[in-house]
Amino acid sequence: MSALKDQDPRVHAIKTKIRVVPNFPKPGIMFQDITTLLLDPKAFKDTIDMFVERYKGKNISVVAGIEARGFIFGPPIALAIGAKFVPLRKPRKLPGDVIFEEYTLEYGRDRLEMHVGAVEQGDRALVVDDLIATGGTLCAAMSLLERVGAEVVECACLIELPDLQGRERLNGKPLYVLVESH
Amino acid sequence: MSALKDQDPRVHAIKTKIRVVPNFPKPGIMFQDITTLLLDPKAFKDTIDMFVERYKGKNISVVAGIEARGFIFGPPIALAIGAKFVPLRKPRKLPGDVIFEEYTLEYGRDRLEMHVGAVEQGDRALVVDDLIATGGTLCAAMSLLERVGAEVVECACLIELPDLQGRERLNGKPLYVLVESH
Repeated sequence: MSALKDQDPRVHAIKTKIRVVPNFPKPGIMFQDITTLLLDPKAFKDTIDMFVERYKGKNISVVAGIEARGFIFGPPIALAIGAKFVPLRKPRKLPGDVIFEEYTLEYGRDRLEMHVGAVEQGDRALVVDDLIATGGTLCAAMSLLERVGAEVVECACLIELPDLQGRERLNGKPLYVLVESH
Repeated sequence: MSALKDQDPRVHAIKTKIRVVPNFPKPGIMFQDITTLLLDPKAFKDTIDMFVERYKGKNISVVAGIEARGFIFGPPIALAIGAKFVPLRKPRKLPGDVIFEEYTLEYGRDRLEMHVGAVEQGDRALVVDDLIATGGTLCAAMSLLERVGAEVVECACLIELPDLQGRERLNGKPLYVLVESH
């Protein structure tokens, strides 16, 4: 993280609101639970504000949020910067024609789908999720966006698990996170 | 819908942005697709603004959003009115201790879970989802909130399917919707 962000007093408050639940969804996983952050309106607003301050005026035309927790953080950012919001969903959830990417999770395997026509050639995209672990989900999201001709400007996550080195899998694409958890 | 709301020019614009996809997720269902609304930043903002105008100053302390599309509309409302946001989730998604309610869907059967401790005695709750069909999901959500001592002030949905008479299943609890679809 940058020195500037570490000095922002909001970051410490945000971090203290994230609850770590051991052994969920399976033994050995230390689950980063952001629902406790959402119970604090000030901390939740600070979280969104920090992203908006970073992306306002950057000509981002689409915020792509990854199901399901990316749906909580993505829309408020999209609304504040005047971008469209595009949900990237689990299989068989989107009713229209889709393109998809498969990916490997920290625990399991899954597929991400995007509506055809939601993102267009020339769109400037921000990918939003609550957490980056191994980076597989973000990679799949970026592939979907790039396949239809969008430029991924950055990936934005609330939490990074740097020990899993997901950042190194993003092919040099910038990643912005508010807090790290070891 | 009230005459006042029908006269709001934003409602018509919002309605035209909702796409109807026939035979999804199964034959005979006319699926109301709100993802096309999210592609129009102005219409999405108008949608949130209309809810915020209604609930601002009403002492609502918690916005409960139903997975997954309630996560798209609930958080921006919660942020704007300074309430906490509580996700009501599908089984095995919430990492902490939960209470749950089972319910019948327009197509199938499911269960909704809420974190223990997220909502407290005396909380004033708004339940948010994108759509009311038969009302089963909203009933389950209200039960969860009331079981822990919260008062459900209202249910807010973007779309009502009045032919399915879900409104009549809400035990007299107020329901506010922006558009109806027949």
